[in-house]
Amino acid sequence: MKVCKFGGTSLASAEQFRKVANIVLADDERKIVVVSAPGKRNKPDTKVTDLLIAYADATLGGADGEDVRQSILSRFAEIVDDLGLPREELDTIASILTARSAGDRSHRERYTDSIKALGEEFSARLLAAYMRKEGHDFIYVDPKDAGLVLSDEPGNAQVLPESYERLRPLRDSASRIIFPGFYGYAKNGNLVAFPRGGSDITGAILAAAVQADVYENFTDVDNVFAADPRVVERPAAIHEMTYAEMRELSYAGFSVLHDEALQPAFNAKIPVHIRNTNNPESRGTLISLERHNQELPVVGVAGSTDFCAIFLSKYLMNREKGFGRRLLQIIEDAGLSYEHMPSGIDHVSVILKESTFTPDVEERVLNRIREELQPDKLLVRRGIALIMIVGDGMTQQIGIAKRATGALADSSVNLEMINQGASENSIMFGIRKDDLNKAIVALHNVFFHE
Amino acid sequence: MKVCKFGGTSLASAEQFRKVANIVLADDERKIVVVSAPGKRNKPDTKVTDLLIAYADATLGGADGEDVRQSILSRFAEIVDDLGLPREELDTIASILTARSAGDRSHRERYTDSIKALGEEFSARLLAAYMRKEGHDFIYVDPKDAGLVLSDEPGNAQVLPESYERLRPLRDSASRIIFPGFYGYAKNGNLVAFPRGGSDITGAILAAAVQADVYENFTDVDNVFAADPRVVERPAAIHEMTYAEMRELSYAGFSVLHDEALQPAFNAKIPVHIRNTNNPESRGTLISLERHNQELPVVGVAGSTDFCAIFLSKYLMNREKGFGRRLLQIIEDAGLSYEHMPSGIDHVSVILKESTFTPDVEERVLNRIREELQPDKLLVRRGIALIMIVGDGMTQQIGIAKRATGALADSSVNLEMINQGASENSIMFGIRKDDLNKAIVALHNVFFHE
Repeated sequence: MKVCKFGGTSLASAEQFRKVANIVLADDERKIVVVSAPGKRNKPDTKVTDLLIAYADATLGGADGEDVRQSILSRFAEIVDDLGLPREELDTIASILTARSAGDRSHRERYTDSIKALGEEFSARLLAAYMRKEGHDFIYVDPKDAGLVLSDEPGNAQVLPESYERLRPLRDSASRIIFPGFYGYAKNGNLVAFPRGGSDITGAILAAAVQADVYENFTDVDNVFAADPRVVERPAAIHEMTYAEMRELSYAGFSVLHDEALQPAFNAKIPVHIRNTNNPESRGTLISLERHNQELPVVGVAGSTDFCAIFLSKYLMNREKGFGRRLLQIIEDAGLSYEHMPSGIDHVSVILKESTFTPDVEERVLNRIREELQPDKLLVRRGIALIMIVGDGMTQQIGIAKRATGALADSSVNLEMINQGASENSIMFGIRKDDLNKAIVALHNVFFHE
Repeated sequence: MKVCKFGGTSLASAEQFRKVANIVLADDERKIVVVSAPGKRNKPDTKVTDLLIAYADATLGGADGEDVRQSILSRFAEIVDDLGLPREELDTIASILTARSAGDRSHRERYTDSIKALGEEFSARLLAAYMRKEGHDFIYVDPKDAGLVLSDEPGNAQVLPESYERLRPLRDSASRIIFPGFYGYAKNGNLVAFPRGGSDITGAILAAAVQADVYENFTDVDNVFAADPRVVERPAAIHEMTYAEMRELSYAGFSVLHDEALQPAFNAKIPVHIRNTNNPESRGTLISLERHNQELPVVGVAGSTDFCAIFLSKYLMNREKGFGRRLLQIIEDAGLSYEHMPSGIDHVSVILKESTFTPDVEERVLNRIREELQPDKLLVRRGIALIMIVGDGMTQQIGIAKRATGALADSSVNLEMINQGASENSIMFGIRKDDLNKAIVALHNVFFHE
């Protein structure tokens, strides 16, 4: 059996609902369907979730939010009408929204969660109604009834391990299931939402719980690309990828998927198949434990800016026991995470997220370093980008570094840092922020267009 | 004025003493001459210092050590006779040796220092005597009289800062000075020796104290080579090099010079000129703060084996604040120094000297890592070599990494690690131990023979 999840653009309109229905009905194995809230129909459009958040904000601020409420209802009215569903479906939606907005507003985040999760609930209710109208046995399943139990952290809830056991019986449901993504319930009965990307999480949890053969994640792209299509013209399509590769690319700045959202499926060793609702014939990208096509040493290139480096030098630093450890203690005490710490005989750099290294924090950290470690030289370099090339076991192959550094040099990109050796699946390069796009193009082309 | 130091092979025989005399007399600026003990005259020969240590051992063990004593005296007898010095010089040497061996033997290291330092004292006394016999105004200066004050650490003494002030008046000596290397005196009056390479240290301290224009370090090679001549056929000669380059190369495994021995001269910004006693016309290698010839991006390649890596992976490691710091704490608690710690999103490696990571230590460290950090995967890789290419500011130049990784790939050397970014002067590569020589040849040739 398959668990499939459809993202916001897959449910943005009645036309999209029909595509989803056709995809689900085309394969009897698609027994559990997770849906997002209706997304944008076009570029200037607003996602239903954003309308719901705006409605929660307005009502929390004492306004009646009637304008936003009407916008929300008209999105669903359009879908209800175009799908030929009875008007009572819309009445149900309106009354649920009214009832929910009359709830307890004393805890801002909790109230917001209870409102913003309605996009998924309404999507799921309407899709189930449409399926039944078309003569198919589908039921809407509420996360509370199904037993999706989360930590009581509004807006940032985490699944509790017992959920898997409780959700398992969905496997044996006689009817096929439409399940709203994005939220669940805390043990105390409160509705709590996942972080953004939460419908992916719901799908991954269900796939793991019912031990699905595959978790199909329907979105609006044909496949994952080897590099960001906004940066590289016609990037290579990647049809197979391992969990580890996905994870490194996601860290490096790939925005297609949040690897942590997919983690429950990865942990249960369930393959994730990225597919396109608008082009279900396309091959998609299969993410699994191992890939069969080992021809490509590199599956992707990604990078991001927002890094900076604290650079220290001190004579005989590498003889001073505890130097690195004390440096990391100072970083930790300032509440910072470090990304990477290249070191040499008399030198060490600590790479940090630039946005976390505010002038205040910088002053505090540098003062402590000066006082406690007495470096000969201490400076901060800002405007660094990190870029990674990723491929399982690539560092075991001779010549990868040669091709990568060659491509960067030929594009006049200066390498400020190279970090290879921690992971077998990637090489990281530190470059100037302004060179990022040039570097992504160079690395993509050397591994995919040659 | 110049301070010059002559190493052991430069004083191995009367013939070598004459070469030294000619070199010193060729330039009036050579006012302070530091000498080592006579070294090997040929391959199977024994250094006088080693004979003296054997003599100290024998007498400490209760033997009379007469055989070794005779070997020592015969080395000096040959020099005295061949230089045409009066036999009284040898009698003085014999009586000093007798007196010294009658000293306090209760502290083994202290007694050994007092004996093994005699090679330098005798060298210096004989060279001064020869100079005077030839009609030149030279005096032997004792380190105690001159004020070379060291920490009271037998065999591992460090210069005390006050020495510089006390030694400064040597600058104004009317006579030129012959000074024994390798030892000085603690404040309590005990003779204490530097670590091996100690004559280089004495010369560097004197050069700094008298603010010499240059510290000439005479040895038995024409210059520093870009790579180890035992590994690379006809390596490139390096005529200029900066302190920082020397230091990185020395760390990486260059055996020509101990950079720490030269540190007092570096600190005082005094250029160090490596020259050949046996070929004083050759250009040598000038080590200074900056080099004038900027044409070569790389001045040298060196590497060494004896490294190993602890490799850990753990999901979301880079989110776990304090992970790296706690890992380094475990390393530190085991009394280990780490060389380098490449890290990625879920991975970190710690590179250590393999010889310090004994099976006992390994077991203790891995157990603590397992218990305290709970990695998903933990393994130790042994048999790693680290190799460095060194050149001031090289990492600011585009294409260096390309050439280096290209040469290594073309020689089928797999790169297990690359570390660039901590230092501006070097790139470090981690490779398999067995590939070290191949890698040194490849890197030397790409930067020096192309």
